[in-house]
Amino acid sequence: MLQELRESIKPIDESYYEKAQKRLDNLTKPPGSLGRLEEFARRLVAIYRDEMPEIPKKVVFTFAGDHGVSEEGVSAYPSEVTRQMVFNFINGGAGINVLARHAGADVVVVDIGVNFDFQDMEGLKKRKVVYGTRNMTKGPAMTVEEAKRCIEVGIELAREYAEMGYRMFATGEMGIANTTPSSAIAAVITGRDVAEVTGRGTGIGDEALQRKINAIKKAIDVNKPDPSDPIDVLAKVGGAEIGGIAGLCLGAAQLGLPVVVDGFISTAGALIAYAINPLVKDYMFSAHNSQEIGHKVMLQHMGLRPILDLDLRLGEGTGAAVAMTLLDAGLKIYREMATFDEAGVTGEKQC
Amino acid sequence: MLQELRESIKPIDESYYEKAQKRLDNLTKPPGSLGRLEEFARRLVAIYRDEMPEIPKKVVFTFAGDHGVSEEGVSAYPSEVTRQMVFNFINGGAGINVLARHAGADVVVVDIGVNFDFQDMEGLKKRKVVYGTRNMTKGPAMTVEEAKRCIEVGIELAREYAEMGYRMFATGEMGIANTTPSSAIAAVITGRDVAEVTGRGTGIGDEALQRKINAIKKAIDVNKPDPSDPIDVLAKVGGAEIGGIAGLCLGAAQLGLPVVVDGFISTAGALIAYAINPLVKDYMFSAHNSQEIGHKVMLQHMGLRPILDLDLRLGEGTGAAVAMTLLDAGLKIYREMATFDEAGVTGEKQC
Repeated sequence: MLQELRESIKPIDESYYEKAQKRLDNLTKPPGSLGRLEEFARRLVAIYRDEMPEIPKKVVFTFAGDHGVSEEGVSAYPSEVTRQMVFNFINGGAGINVLARHAGADVVVVDIGVNFDFQDMEGLKKRKVVYGTRNMTKGPAMTVEEAKRCIEVGIELAREYAEMGYRMFATGEMGIANTTPSSAIAAVITGRDVAEVTGRGTGIGDEALQRKINAIKKAIDVNKPDPSDPIDVLAKVGGAEIGGIAGLCLGAAQLGLPVVVDGFISTAGALIAYAINPLVKDYMFSAHNSQEIGHKVMLQHMGLRPILDLDLRLGEGTGAAVAMTLLDAGLKIYREMATFDEAGVTGEKQC
Repeated sequence: MLQELRESIKPIDESYYEKAQKRLDNLTKPPGSLGRLEEFARRLVAIYRDEMPEIPKKVVFTFAGDHGVSEEGVSAYPSEVTRQMVFNFINGGAGINVLARHAGADVVVVDIGVNFDFQDMEGLKKRKVVYGTRNMTKGPAMTVEEAKRCIEVGIELAREYAEMGYRMFATGEMGIANTTPSSAIAAVITGRDVAEVTGRGTGIGDEALQRKINAIKKAIDVNKPDPSDPIDVLAKVGGAEIGGIAGLCLGAAQLGLPVVVDGFISTAGALIAYAINPLVKDYMFSAHNSQEIGHKVMLQHMGLRPILDLDLRLGEGTGAAVAMTLLDAGLKIYREMATFDEAGVTGEKQC
C-alpha cells in the first residue's frame, strides 16, 4: 500500500504555471496586483492540468470518530457530543452545513470511528473502522491494520466522489478529544516538544491543559511511535478521522484534484499524508490559520501558507468551506477578466 | 457641513453586542470557536440595531478621478488609463466586476474627477467635481469648496442607494497616480515620515519611487496642509475619489449602515472621514491588508484589523468585494446554525 502511494502521485507539471501566468499578466490589472488570488488560479490550472478550468463541483468530507483518550479528561466536552454532532450535521444545523451552503459545496459525513451504531441516513457514509480508538496512554490507539484501513477509506471516498463529478475536496472532522492525537502526531513528526504543539482545543482550562500535555507525553512514552513510519504514528497516537483525512489527501493527489485542508486536526491528517509522500503537498491548500498553537508548526514543516486568518478553532471543515470561496474567486478572476487588448486598456508601464 | 457631520453620527448601541453574543454562545459550537465570523455577526447586529438582520443587498462604489501630480512621473501608467478603465468597468471586464459578481454585489462607477467627458452609460454615475486635480506639487490639488463637494457626492450616493434598499456599501476607486495623494494624506494625518508611508503603487521602479517621495514632500512643503483640518488636507494633497470615499463612509455611518473599506487609497478616504468624526469607525470594516506599505499605518491609527491578507494591491474595491463574502458568512452562521437545544447537543463544558 505505501509503495503504491509513493509511486502513484505525479508531481505538478510546472509548465502550467507559466501558461497561467501568461494569461494573468495579460488581464487588465498591474501584473501580480491580485496577489494570492492569482496564486490560487495558477495552482489550480497546474493541478487540473487544464488551461481554462471550470469552477469545480465541491464536497466537504466531515470524518467523525471517537477517542479512548477522552477518558483522561483532556476535552471540555463528553464523548457523546461526537454522535450528537453527527445528527446535527445530518440535519443541516452545524457550522459546516451553513458554511458549505455558503460555498456551494456538499457535505458528506463519514462515520469512520464513532462509538455508536447509526441507522442509514441521507448524507452519512458508514465506513466505520473502529468504535472509537483505544486510550493511547495505555497502548496503541489503533492496530496498524486499522490505521491502514482508515487511509483506504479516505482514498476510496476521493475516487467515488471524483467519479460523481466532484473536482474539489475539503477535509473536516468531528471527534471529541481529537486535538489530543493531533498534537501527538505534530510532536512526533515535527520533533517539537509536546507543550509547544498542544493547545486548549474546544476551550479547556489550565488544569485540563496540563492533563492533556501529560497524557500525550505518556502516550508517546508508552507506544514509542516511529517518526519515520507515518502509519505507525497514526496507529499508535492517531485517530480514525485523522487517518481518513490523510487518505483523502492522498486520494486527491493521486487523482490530480485539489484538496482544501481545514485547521489543526485536518492538518495532522495532511501531515501523515505528507510523511507518506511529500508530493501530496502540491495538491493541498491550507484553508486557514487555526487558533490552536500546534497548527503553525505543522504548516511550516510542510511549507504551506494558510489562506485565511479568522481566529477559527471549530473544525468540522468550516475554515475549508470558507477558503473554497476564495479559490473560486481566484479562478473567476482568471476566467472572466478582460485582457488589455479586449478592453482597449494601455498595458505598457512607463516607469 | 462639518458641524452636521460631527453631530449626525450616532455611536453604536453596545447592548446589541450582548444580545448577539448570547445567541452566538447558544449555537452548536464551543463559545468563540468561529472567531472573527462571530465578530462580524456581532458588529453587523449592532450596526443594523437588529437582532436578526437579513443578508444585505450590496453595492460597491468605484469612484474614478485623475490626478495632476501624475505629470511628475509618479505612476507606472499614463493618466489615460483612468478613463480606459472606466469603460472596462462599464463593460464588466475588470477585476471589480468579476469579484462583485462573486460577492453578489452591484458595481456603481462614479465619475467624480476624471479628465474626460463620458456619455451617459448604464452603471456610470456622472458626479464630476473636477476634471482631474491640479498638480499638488505646485499648489492645492483642489479648492476647499471642491473637496467639500466630493464629500457631499459620497454622502448623497449613500442616501440614494439606501433608499433603493442597499444595506451594505463597499468603497473602491480608480485613478492613475492616486497612491501619491493617499500617501500624502497618510503622512499628514498620522504624522509619519513620507518615506514610511509611500510604496510602489501599481509597480514603479526605484527611481520613480524616489520621485514619488520627493513629489509628496514638495506638495506638503508647498501647501502646508493643516493636520487638524481634514478638509484642508483633502483639498491640498488629496483627490476627488478619495473625497467621495470619505463621504460614502460618513454617509453610511449617518444612515446606520456598514461600509467595507477596500485597500490603501480607500483607507486614505476612510482616514479623512475618521478625522472628521471618529465615530465613523464603528460602521467600517477594513477589507484586507494591502501590499502598499502605508496601509498598516493608517489602520493602526484608526484601530482597524483587516479581514483578509491576500497580498492584493489592485484597488477598484476588489478586496472589499471579497471581504463582503466573509461578512455574509458571519451573518449566515448567526442566522442559520442550530442552537444546543434545537439540536439536542450537550453544551455544558466538563472542564
